[in-house]
Amino acid sequence: MKILIIGAAGMIGNRLAKSILKDGLSKKAHDLTLFDVITPTLGSDINSITIKTGNIADPMVAKELIANKPDIIFHLAAIVSGAAEAEFEKGWHINAQGTWHLLEEIRKFHIASDGFYTPKFIYTSSIAIFSGPYPNAVDDDFAPNPETSYGAQKLVGEVLINDYTRKRFVNGVALRFPTIVVRPGIPNKAASSFYSSIIREPLNGNEAILPVSDTLRHWFASPRSAIGFLRHAAILDLTKLGKRRALNLPGVSCSIADQIISLEALAGAKISKLIKRQADPVIESIVTRWPQSFIPERATSLGFIADDSFTQIIQNYIDEEIEPGLFNSQ
Amino acid sequence: MKILIIGAAGMIGNRLAKSILKDGLSKKAHDLTLFDVITPTLGSDINSITIKTGNIADPMVAKELIANKPDIIFHLAAIVSGAAEAEFEKGWHINAQGTWHLLEEIRKFHIASDGFYTPKFIYTSSIAIFSGPYPNAVDDDFAPNPETSYGAQKLVGEVLINDYTRKRFVNGVALRFPTIVVRPGIPNKAASSFYSSIIREPLNGNEAILPVSDTLRHWFASPRSAIGFLRHAAILDLTKLGKRRALNLPGVSCSIADQIISLEALAGAKISKLIKRQADPVIESIVTRWPQSFIPERATSLGFIADDSFTQIIQNYIDEEIEPGLFNSQ
Repeated sequence: MKILIIGAAGMIGNRLAKSILKDGLSKKAHDLTLFDVITPTLGSDINSITIKTGNIADPMVAKELIANKPDIIFHLAAIVSGAAEAEFEKGWHINAQGTWHLLEEIRKFHIASDGFYTPKFIYTSSIAIFSGPYPNAVDDDFAPNPETSYGAQKLVGEVLINDYTRKRFVNGVALRFPTIVVRPGIPNKAASSFYSSIIREPLNGNEAILPVSDTLRHWFASPRSAIGFLRHAAILDLTKLGKRRALNLPGVSCSIADQIISLEALAGAKISKLIKRQADPVIESIVTRWPQSFIPERATSLGFIADDSFTQIIQNYIDEEIEPGLFNSQ
Repeated sequence: MKILIIGAAGMIGNRLAKSILKDGLSKKAHDLTLFDVITPTLGSDINSITIKTGNIADPMVAKELIANKPDIIFHLAAIVSGAAEAEFEKGWHINAQGTWHLLEEIRKFHIASDGFYTPKFIYTSSIAIFSGPYPNAVDDDFAPNPETSYGAQKLVGEVLINDYTRKRFVNGVALRFPTIVVRPGIPNKAASSFYSSIIREPLNGNEAILPVSDTLRHWFASPRSAIGFLRHAAILDLTKLGKRRALNLPGVSCSIADQIISLEALAGAKISKLIKRQADPVIESIVTRWPQSFIPERATSLGFIADDSFTQIIQNYIDEEIEPGLFNSQ
């Protein structure tokens, strides 16, 4: 079985590749191709994979990627929200046109194969397709109204996938990811960066800035759950989704106060002294527009599973990112 | 004031052009350009207008149309639902890429003019962006879920217009038209064609086929209302729409039984004998998926007005399409 991961140098794409190499995906043998704009790397030398680089906004790149006729395509490549807002043209070309080019190449190979080639196409969408006013919890029928270019681009991808799937050119699904925490590494300029920093930095013994109110509530999943969502989509019979191929995914709804309580429960009460409150009206104006909670009934009934709690999300980070012995709870 | 009508050879575009030539649009003098894939014609020789032809899917055509820097752009050009379903690639290129090219050219002129050029962009979307299951009446928050390529393409246009407007490159609105009846002319292959035929043909003394049940209810507006919607959008302060630039429009919710009662009220009880019931499961399977009614609160509060009743819709047809003396009611 041929598997293609587009966006394999990113945090999620890279873990997905490692997960497939380690645990497989189904009982069939795998032929894995990793693609990104920069060279995707894996922790160890792996001879069984193909590495490619290029710009997904270039139609010739899409043509080359699909020419190998992968059975399962994970399309995770995108420029992130802040970059898509700052660079309008680049965002639309990479995030929307890039997805369209891939679907067009799949359609051409589908037709050239007399309908035999209809790959699975697993696409990471985002809760950024939504905007307020929100109900307390967003249900599966809540209407998308993006108020960022990133959200609009992701929504266009969803609409394309739905129509290409309805015509049976592709067998697609769009997974609307929660905000993924705790991200390893260093703080970046994303408005959501602090959601990882306020956990990661104190665990590493460093101070973190909290730019918003403790009462702010949002919707989260761990990188481990993200990989689980993608793996589950890859083995799921997608016809169970019916004509609506976009899914709100499960997650954990949690206020910042709750997050700090979880952090203290795992690492001791003193750790939260490393979280420094420093209001940032710009960040606050962005993140207060995000949804607080979801009721993802369709995804849950289809077997998608998120973390149990925010404590579990932090524990995943400790297990995966902190070297044994460097962190001792309490 | 420069006005551009794209799709000016179509039924609505042509009437809009005539309406602007006859009654103006605002107090300013007008410089009207009509564009379509075939040459738009008007009833009389008009020297004050510019006629252009071309394919809106060609980026160079978009460039040429926008180079004249129209102040108001009516974008009505599209291949219709049945054609977009039969010719997938053509539908996506004309209906979605064509709209995108126009918005891109506007953005380029906006930037080249240091933000001075931000035209009104009035786009005809459609209730085809929706699918069931429906509530009895669809409200302004009902989520779009297209189940035709035409609906998907119109929705992509909406998402683009919203984002280009949010970035202030254009001042756009997407008007989700009801089904427009009574269309003049002859029956065509559109699934909705019978909705016009069952009124038009009997009034012209001819038989019409009714392929669906009398109880089927749907959402209608007359060509006269359609022109009213477009004219109102052209003079409306679109910032009143806030960040959601797509609007469900008002209309008349009416069952086929109600339509026949209205027809009989205007033209006598005997006229309905010209309506022959002949079930067509294919047409029925399509049109029973369409919404039955709307509660278009946002559009109504913004001053968009539809016909009073289905009787009014028929009366409009009689007034506009049947030569005086040829039809005598009762």
